[in-house]
Amino acid sequence: MRKDASGIVTLITDFGLLDEYAGAMKGAILKVNPRCQIIDVTHQVEPQDVRRAAFVLRNTYPYYPAGTVHMVVVDPGVGTQRRPVILHKSGHYFVGPDNGVFTFVISANGKTEGYEITRREFFLSPPSETFHGRDIFAPVAGHLSLGREPKRFGPRAAGFARAEWPRPRLKGGKLLGQILFSDSFGNLITNISREEYGLLSAGRPLRIKGKGWRIDRIHRTYGQGKTGEPMALFGSSGLLEIAVCGGSAKKDFGLKPGDRLIVTPL
Amino acid sequence: MRKDASGIVTLITDFGLLDEYAGAMKGAILKVNPRCQIIDVTHQVEPQDVRRAAFVLRNTYPYYPAGTVHMVVVDPGVGTQRRPVILHKSGHYFVGPDNGVFTFVISANGKTEGYEITRREFFLSPPSETFHGRDIFAPVAGHLSLGREPKRFGPRAAGFARAEWPRPRLKGGKLLGQILFSDSFGNLITNISREEYGLLSAGRPLRIKGKGWRIDRIHRTYGQGKTGEPMALFGSSGLLEIAVCGGSAKKDFGLKPGDRLIVTPL
Amino acid sequence: MRKDASGIVTLITDFGLLDEYAGAMKGAILKVNPRCQIIDVTHQVEPQDVRRAAFVLRNTYPYYPAGTVHMVVVDPGVGTQRRPVILHKSGHYFVGPDNGVFTFVISANGKTEGYEITRREFFLSPPSETFHGRDIFAPVAGHLSLGREPKRFGPRAAGFARAEWPRPRLKGGKLLGQILFSDSFGNLITNISREEYGLLSAGRPLRIKGKGWRIDRIHRTYGQGKTGEPMALFGSSGLLEIAVCGGSAKKDFGLKPGDRLIVTPL
Repeated sequence: MRKDASGIVTLITDFGLLDEYAGAMKGAILKVNPRCQIIDVTHQVEPQDVRRAAFVLRNTYPYYPAGTVHMVVVDPGVGTQRRPVILHKSGHYFVGPDNGVFTFVISANGKTEGYEITRREFFLSPPSETFHGRDIFAPVAGHLSLGREPKRFGPRAAGFARAEWPRPRLKGGKLLGQILFSDSFGNLITNISREEYGLLSAGRPLRIKGKGWRIDRIHRTYGQGKTGEPMALFGSSGLLEIAVCGGSAKKDFGLKPGDRLIVTPL
Repeated sequence: MRKDASGIVTLITDFGLLDEYAGAMKGAILKVNPRCQIIDVTHQVEPQDVRRAAFVLRNTYPYYPAGTVHMVVVDPGVGTQRRPVILHKSGHYFVGPDNGVFTFVISANGKTEGYEITRREFFLSPPSETFHGRDIFAPVAGHLSLGREPKRFGPRAAGFARAEWPRPRLKGGKLLGQILFSDSFGNLITNISREEYGLLSAGRPLRIKGKGWRIDRIHRTYGQGKTGEPMALFGSSGLLEIAVCGGSAKKDFGLKPGDRLIVTPL
Repeated sequence: MRKDASGIVTLITDFGLLDEYAGAMKGAILKVNPRCQIIDVTHQVEPQDVRRAAFVLRNTYPYYPAGTVHMVVVDPGVGTQRRPVILHKSGHYFVGPDNGVFTFVISANGKTEGYEITRREFFLSPPSETFHGRDIFAPVAGHLSLGREPKRFGPRAAGFARAEWPRPRLKGGKLLGQILFSDSFGNLITNISREEYGLLSAGRPLRIKGKGWRIDRIHRTYGQGKTGEPMALFGSSGLLEIAVCGGSAKKDFGLKPGDRLIVTPL
């Protein structure tokens, strides 16, 4: 048994909160480890939005203590050929389907150790074909939270799936990006990182513009914007955001995921 | 004191997540047992939908370790004549109003031991007339999670309420069923169990049809359907579901709870 | 170190449940205290509704065991001049922005001890300007849940912000109030307390009326009303509520926060 178990299991799913799915899955974890602390990160990923699940995981797992188990169950291919897997990276353990939800775990710095989950003696018996979250991933996460070694659940594996992720493009001295997500405050998160912005800027002021709006400076925080005007800042995920002080950039300006933006020297 | 306490209390309510009700109730549990692990199953049962609460409980409690306390507070009759009760069955403890939320606990195989909660010294003082979840059920659940005996809270009771549950009917060699619920993926859960279907089928293929749609086979899992076409399978609750691979049967075909379906030999 | 720590941290935020914010914040608490029990009170306060957050806190914290840490992160001014603070009152610890979220903690009976959070060695390094919930309040809450003294995080402070709270007015023998909130059952919570009502009533029956409706008695509980008719009662927060038995006062009568009501002797 490993000594590094934090006893914590985090959950990211698209189960929603209306049904019994999250509750049944939590039970199956606790049946293996009744002392486990289960943390709801979110069950509100849009159904089958693997990319969003990968992004939520990217922005949460590094804040947890080492030895934590992170379950991600956004699993449109449940019961088909996609593999159930365990990853081990930077002291964290990850359990879920090999369908791209672990994209940012794999691409982060450091070595990724991976395993395919094949040992049926750990599954709920018999496992359903439609709910591996409860019948496969939950008991495996329970055992991992007790300190069991990942290799106990199946053979080493590699070549994990990655979700498509639209990177910004540098073209003719301009940075071409897009809005990826809106959050529940109506802030719009783009795909332009602080580093990418900095490379273009090199200390010079830049203009950010889209269809019908433009912004000529970067603020530090939301409260510094002018009420009712769009502002730009680097949010807590390290990406450029479009926001409105005291409002919702999504509602107030009709901006939405997929919208393009261009960053140019002023 | 009992030795079987898992230290876990699960919650099923219709309180929603906007208000303080769930938070106040959790506090009242923890005031009795600060080491208790509280698990949110759902607080999003439709207001006063006793039948749905009973169904969520049916699909979650068996997955928890024995010695767990399951609180169900969907309680339109709070403060009136309906009894507050404790049930004990198959190693699990159940706390809530006697209004049908425990329908499937009572009807499951095995002996049901029941108690009416009458001992006011365990209540928050004075208990409100509008929020027994916080003032009666929560402290009782806290004490049960510590291992206190159910009989300490009041006298033995029997004759518990059951929610009306529409069973499918077998008529002229056909099985007449209906859609009971839609889940957050838009899958439609019917009232036809795997056993009932199997009795009619006896190995022969069957046709499932409703107004404007029909399905001639059973798939194993969601990913096997043809995109954009309705499919049928047995879901994780053991009931027949109508689904759409990569879509929502509810939205794509306009199906909804209450809709009828007929199963006939092909 | 204090001996009174319950090991519990409660959370009230306006982060919603779609994003990673709540999950990242929980991680930052657990990184400091992996044994901490984190309790979601609500993450669904309307964005930036400080008054509602204050009200949810008023109705939850007294139900928790002493030594509990209550984090409230509804923080439109994050990164600006508003102070990050710790309050200590009646055995409870409170962490959040000094913007009015602690209005009812301050105004409750008893002594309030307050501190400004200034010691950067406890912050996530470097703290973001947009997410003090994760980078400042969470690690401080983690340390408080371990029993660390509030004075360790910065100097004593006073003069805390209070949210505007509309009190009912007594005028010409009438009590003039308003609807403050609707809950998820559609019950409408007014700003008239049981004490204020009692002072006017002094045992006499009163009439409660608004635009197009009137109620001539107080019921004890929801189940006693006539189906489809508005009723009045004192809810679990001690305030007068307008409700409908088996329905929603909000939907059925079109009542909403801000609507006025008058209480007069019959």
